[in-house]
Amino acid sequence: MIQRIPTPEKMKEIVSALKCERRSIGLVPTMGYFHEGHLSLMRRSSAENDATIVSLFVNPTQFGANEDLEKYPRDLDRDTKLAEEAGADYLFTPTNEMMYPEGYKTYVKVVDWSGFLCGVSRPIHFRGVTTVCCKLFNICMPDRAYFGLKDAQQYLIIDKMVRDLNMNVEIIPMQTVREADGLAMSSRNVYLTDEERKAAPLIQKGLTKALKMYENGETDAKKVKAAISDTIAESQLFKLDYLEAVSKETLCPVEGILPGTLIAVAAYLGKARLIDNIIL
Amino acid sequence: MIQRIPTPEKMKEIVSALKCERRSIGLVPTMGYFHEGHLSLMRRSSAENDATIVSLFVNPTQFGANEDLEKYPRDLDRDTKLAEEAGADYLFTPTNEMMYPEGYKTYVKVVDWSGFLCGVSRPIHFRGVTTVCCKLFNICMPDRAYFGLKDAQQYLIIDKMVRDLNMNVEIIPMQTVREADGLAMSSRNVYLTDEERKAAPLIQKGLTKALKMYENGETDAKKVKAAISDTIAESQLFKLDYLEAVSKETLCPVEGILPGTLIAVAAYLGKARLIDNIIL
Repeated sequence: MIQRIPTPEKMKEIVSALKCERRSIGLVPTMGYFHEGHLSLMRRSSAENDATIVSLFVNPTQFGANEDLEKYPRDLDRDTKLAEEAGADYLFTPTNEMMYPEGYKTYVKVVDWSGFLCGVSRPIHFRGVTTVCCKLFNICMPDRAYFGLKDAQQYLIIDKMVRDLNMNVEIIPMQTVREADGLAMSSRNVYLTDEERKAAPLIQKGLTKALKMYENGETDAKKVKAAISDTIAESQLFKLDYLEAVSKETLCPVEGILPGTLIAVAAYLGKARLIDNIIL
Repeated sequence: MIQRIPTPEKMKEIVSALKCERRSIGLVPTMGYFHEGHLSLMRRSSAENDATIVSLFVNPTQFGANEDLEKYPRDLDRDTKLAEEAGADYLFTPTNEMMYPEGYKTYVKVVDWSGFLCGVSRPIHFRGVTTVCCKLFNICMPDRAYFGLKDAQQYLIIDKMVRDLNMNVEIIPMQTVREADGLAMSSRNVYLTDEERKAAPLIQKGLTKALKMYENGETDAKKVKAAISDTIAESQLFKLDYLEAVSKETLCPVEGILPGTLIAVAAYLGKARLIDNIIL
């Protein structure tokens, strides 16, 4: 039976007791409205750790002023049931006021990297992500924390923060889970109209084309990117935010594709901003 | 017998073993060149914890471009002996390259507060302090960490970081230790010429005057500050950096002095920048 933990204090108490018993802890940080991607992280954590904590917190500091904080989809009862079925032991559900009490002032930032890719159109986003993850790691003291690779930049930045700040947690990335037609699963896919939903898989279609070109020997980033943008342009519903080929080590753009190059896309489709990527 | 620990990896190993044995850990973060102020922190930590770690690291990220990083006084052999006598069990002495390897990018910042008082003339200083303390806390996992109140703003900022980021450490402040003539002990006092050294206690003399005025009912910050600056002006060797009466809770300037008001001074005296304060 999953336990819902409403406060950081109570969560710390439970974590402290688990630590005393030398039980390993896995953490799956989420903003809720679970899909198969979240559940795959929970199942893996449950298999690898004595206890699995799923945090469910729609973190305000990672949303910009005109973004979808207020309308971000929520369904706590459904999420509780799904997390339990996926093997989670605790669902940590703090409020904004608990996580950011009045007078809150402290932020963790991975400089440079937070301004690349998604950081261009979402300038405070990654500072919010690293700050809340730092807080969650201190509250939950996990041995391992699990992140999906759909948010590749998020994974790379959190892993960098952990290494730079000597944090005592292993960051474990997991493959993007997709719908049957290739669309990367995302809580934000519910924003799509039927027409937009039909166009959405073009992003993944473009990325798959890029992979094939690379496998056939093409290493010119410009040509590979053109193939992706041509594919996405098959629907006029998209508004491209960015399409970049970058080094996984530095997040800097590359002209020649190498093993480990990350090709990342963000595009607006109606009210949704979709992201996807491929690591070559 | 004190053990000198040269790497974060080795330090983490020792900390991990201590944690397994459920032994409490006290940390005294320092930049070395110990005086009685440092030693009072070590003695208290040694009395309150099963194991005491003293970190000795002249942290480059808290020094500005034209500051005294290169010439900061160092004497490792003397420090090792003094720390041992004060009851420290481990002296953690990492190098710059270990703490900030190539490509290092992550910083912790307490916004606003890092730009007040000392943050005006030292704009990157507190970002460096909070970042290195966050790293040291993750490496040493202390139950308690000890800081001297000469650096009152540093103590307040670190305590704020710990609360904001839900860190699992108690920050313990200790009274400033002074020379017989009232000068606050500081590793930087060695920079003073004989003449400057004779003038140096005027700062503390001014602060003591302020305390007496307050005890006699004076609450006008302007008048109390004027008395301090008049006292410091008895020597023309000083160049005042700042003199402020601020709230201990918000670090914002106050016009009327209340219990808990912090009066803080920084002044250049020859090559040294001296700081001191009083909490009323």
